[in-house]
Amino acid sequence: MRYSRLFLPTLKEVPADAEVVSHKLMLRAGMIRKLASGIYSCLPVGLMALRRVESIVREEMNAVGAQEVLLPMVQPADLWLETGRWEKYGKELLRFKDRHGRDCCLGPTHEEVITDLVRNEVRSYRDLPVTLYQIQAKFRDEIRPRFGLMRGREFLMKDAYSFDVDEEALDVTYKAMYRAYCRIFERCGLDFRPVEADTGTIGGHESHEFMVLADTGEDTIACCTRCQYAANVELAPVVEDRPFPPPAPGSRGEDRPREVATPGMRSVEEVTAFLNVAADRLVKTLVFTCEAGPVAALVRGDHALNEVKLKRLLGVDEVKLAGEDEVRGLTGAPVGFAGPVGLPAGVRVVADNALKDLKDFVCGANKKDAHLVGVNWGTDLPVPEFHDLRVITEDDPCPRCGERIELKKGIEVGHVFKLGTKYSEAMGATFLDAGGRERPVVMGCYGIGIGRTVAAAIEQNHDERGIIFPVPISPFKVIITVVNSKDQVMAEAGEEIYKGFLGRGIDVLLDDRKERAGVKFKDAELIGIPLRVTVGKRFKEAGQVELTMRRGGDTVSVPASQAVEEALGLLERA
Amino acid sequence: MRYSRLFLPTLKEVPADAEVVSHKLMLRAGMIRKLASGIYSCLPVGLMALRRVESIVREEMNAVGAQEVLLPMVQPADLWLETGRWEKYGKELLRFKDRHGRDCCLGPTHEEVITDLVRNEVRSYRDLPVTLYQIQAKFRDEIRPRFGLMRGREFLMKDAYSFDVDEEALDVTYKAMYRAYCRIFERCGLDFRPVEADTGTIGGHESHEFMVLADTGEDTIACCTRCQYAANVELAPVVEDRPFPPPAPGSRGEDRPREVATPGMRSVEEVTAFLNVAADRLVKTLVFTCEAGPVAALVRGDHALNEVKLKRLLGVDEVKLAGEDEVRGLTGAPVGFAGPVGLPAGVRVVADNALKDLKDFVCGANKKDAHLVGVNWGTDLPVPEFHDLRVITEDDPCPRCGERIELKKGIEVGHVFKLGTKYSEAMGATFLDAGGRERPVVMGCYGIGIGRTVAAAIEQNHDERGIIFPVPISPFKVIITVVNSKDQVMAEAGEEIYKGFLGRGIDVLLDDRKERAGVKFKDAELIGIPLRVTVGKRFKEAGQVELTMRRGGDTVSVPASQAVEEALGLLERA
Repeated sequence: MRYSRLFLPTLKEVPADAEVVSHKLMLRAGMIRKLASGIYSCLPVGLMALRRVESIVREEMNAVGAQEVLLPMVQPADLWLETGRWEKYGKELLRFKDRHGRDCCLGPTHEEVITDLVRNEVRSYRDLPVTLYQIQAKFRDEIRPRFGLMRGREFLMKDAYSFDVDEEALDVTYKAMYRAYCRIFERCGLDFRPVEADTGTIGGHESHEFMVLADTGEDTIACCTRCQYAANVELAPVVEDRPFPPPAPGSRGEDRPREVATPGMRSVEEVTAFLNVAADRLVKTLVFTCEAGPVAALVRGDHALNEVKLKRLLGVDEVKLAGEDEVRGLTGAPVGFAGPVGLPAGVRVVADNALKDLKDFVCGANKKDAHLVGVNWGTDLPVPEFHDLRVITEDDPCPRCGERIELKKGIEVGHVFKLGTKYSEAMGATFLDAGGRERPVVMGCYGIGIGRTVAAAIEQNHDERGIIFPVPISPFKVIITVVNSKDQVMAEAGEEIYKGFLGRGIDVLLDDRKERAGVKFKDAELIGIPLRVTVGKRFKEAGQVELTMRRGGDTVSVPASQAVEEALGLLERA
Repeated sequence: MRYSRLFLPTLKEVPADAEVVSHKLMLRAGMIRKLASGIYSCLPVGLMALRRVESIVREEMNAVGAQEVLLPMVQPADLWLETGRWEKYGKELLRFKDRHGRDCCLGPTHEEVITDLVRNEVRSYRDLPVTLYQIQAKFRDEIRPRFGLMRGREFLMKDAYSFDVDEEALDVTYKAMYRAYCRIFERCGLDFRPVEADTGTIGGHESHEFMVLADTGEDTIACCTRCQYAANVELAPVVEDRPFPPPAPGSRGEDRPREVATPGMRSVEEVTAFLNVAADRLVKTLVFTCEAGPVAALVRGDHALNEVKLKRLLGVDEVKLAGEDEVRGLTGAPVGFAGPVGLPAGVRVVADNALKDLKDFVCGANKKDAHLVGVNWGTDLPVPEFHDLRVITEDDPCPRCGERIELKKGIEVGHVFKLGTKYSEAMGATFLDAGGRERPVVMGCYGIGIGRTVAAAIEQNHDERGIIFPVPISPFKVIITVVNSKDQVMAEAGEEIYKGFLGRGIDVLLDDRKERAGVKFKDAELIGIPLRVTVGKRFKEAGQVELTMRRGGDTVSVPASQAVEEALGLLERA
């Protein structure tokens, strides 16, 4: 491809509404343009990167026997009514009526459609297993789309669905998919971790996320520093195997809790500073509402409540932090002063395990501008139910081996689930087993965000000058920068080397623009092409061209005639 | 691919709601399944055929310098308001609101989005020309979707848009695209004709359709039997170069028209039979309404009015045949008895050229159950304006060379348009020319229905046993039918030949199912794979396998060891 004919509008300025690096760089490098909130047009160079990921994904899906299909984006409501998700899914499911007034939606995912397809075609255990996948645009009407392709409303996704005769067979399929996912992200050249994950509203009972490690990731993962354990912090269990530290000096060991005035002090920081106690002696009371009723969840002042764990405990799909009015109605006090002492009987009180041995603690007084100090379980209030309810910290042990946990930031690019029979039972997707009995098919589902993988690759691989594409997913492997395209000799040398790469089937970009050398170098670095061949002064003087790796910036001079071979060697070793 | 592991649910029965051959066969051959009215899931074998077409399209688009992009399916209303199509487009444009109440639509086409993209990036004549394309799902909310992928609501389309500095440059781009389209359909192995076409509501001033010839086509095209002229009958001009035949014997040459009773006779057939006159002596009066007011369009009884020509003449986007009430209000008579004599002044009367020399003709009397006979222009009514208003017939001469015209049926699979500055002016997509003047970019647009091309290929290539795929777009080139897969010797021979094809990079399907031979043969014919290798009794007796061409059914026996080479030779010559 010749740069002069490529639709590649690079930008010098960082667009105002781009917050994260990948978003900024994809805009600046002419890969994407915004059409509407969370909706992007993918320009030629952006699409090339997406296609690289797509073809790796496709090869690995085919290699494990998954078969490609293409399902509609517009789906009828009927199927979603069958699974109950028409009501349950929330506003991310964009619902509308067609010209005949029939309820439809834009597919945010395709469990219903694929289960419908399979229930109509699969009759017998002999038709199983079957795994189908597609690479297709999804739509999720995110309330606050952001970060470019990272959290868009319309986005390209590979979604696969497996159908097996039983859990054992699903396990075989799931493991094969898991390994395929590892190969995919390895082949994309990414530093990633598969982690245990929550199954969320999609249902199911085993799940792994594939996280690209990057400081800018929205997800936090707990990785063991010794064993292979890694899990999303949403899920990572906290094993409370250490005795609670003895009461801090100065604790009074009072008989009765004492009310103290804490005017306008709502946060843990404010209260503990004012009372001069450590945060680990304060009980934070968070009031939630959910379909099971109001709940007060208690965690230590220096800990964070894990909503996923709370939802699992309550057996609900959603919990909502109570609003000002609800808190006032339940506790009699404004937000910030809730506490577990004297709550109405209808409020279920659940406490994190770390609070079990806590003595003489501080908590809200359920009264405006007041807290209680010297509170104790059993004497001052009923002993609540204790559960693992908090987010794991680096002070907690690995739940598998007990060694130290490290928290890392990651970007979720893939997710595999064991769905079991949730959808097949709801929709009657059954088969006859070898004994002639009708049984529901056992399903798995497996997603990869194609655009998000490219964005995550950029979050992980960039510097202040631009993208540093991993070789396998770079739109071009090589860029030939002709320092002065008006110079006939240089231009011809560039052409010659260009043909050499084309002859070897290498995706190469020839920068034949009549621009200043500085502009060309800057654009090459911005776009992040792994290797640059510079045809400049040294070519005219000594017949030499320079090969520069985008990552690291190492440069070697080689005779122009050896440029292609040398470059291929460098790319091979990159 | 092994048939036993392929998700390929063939059907013996023809599904009830499938009307046309391609729809029936694509369902029966397990290529597609209906999800909702006009919305289909594409199964593995169907997708393979689509992908074959896609990759031919992609190669030819890239070869003419078009660059692939991927535009969103969900589009904001704003852009459509700029071009006025938000109101004009009709109900095929599926409009809805997102969760924030913003008006959106599903893209039925992408002129607005691409023009918006280009106006933001193109500044100078140096940035032009540029041609962008995508292959993407479109949605048009057809009132009566039918014929499977032929007229679906959601469908895969390649749409390209070109941007040039002026009409001359557009002409170069247009011609290159035209040639690329010819190569695409040639390479797909289709019998097709490019024809001159109406530009319809999309606008513009030159247009060609690419028609796959098939008796089942919905379009009629006028092809010259001598020169290269071919046009959609919607467009083909009628050159009236022959004198009108003299009055038929029995004509009375009356001075005044005479009213005759024609009780309940509304059709040309009824009236001419009753009055015993030829249809070419009757003037048919069709009353239309449109934004320009009521119009009476006159054509000869044996001719058909061409609405496209009428619309062009009136300069309107739409004309509507007047309803019962409107006809009665304008003519004083029910439908079937309208005539040009004595119409109110507000009705514009336009007549087809073929009526110019007509004398002593018959027409409706604008009175229930009555017609007039012996009517003459000038004496009995004002001479109307004469225009080319009728559909060309095989009796008409070629408008280019005067030779005989033939009418053929075709299926539109591609369409190229010169749009000119319609969209760039409406949306302010301008550039600075070499003289520093701001000018609107000059656009073209170019579409191919990917699924429709596959469906049209099937309409053109099938027999009573199933599809006969043209080799280039067949999901598989070869099927190896092992007559008895339980027979170890046959099964192994099949495997061996299978590996031979795979080694040559041939898409081959090994029918390794434990089914009866009859079932296997039937499925192979239904799916339409061009060449079948049969491993049966003759292999066990004499080491021979049979090569059978799906088209024509010719069979040759060859030694198993030569099967691959012989098959490749046969496919080459197919």
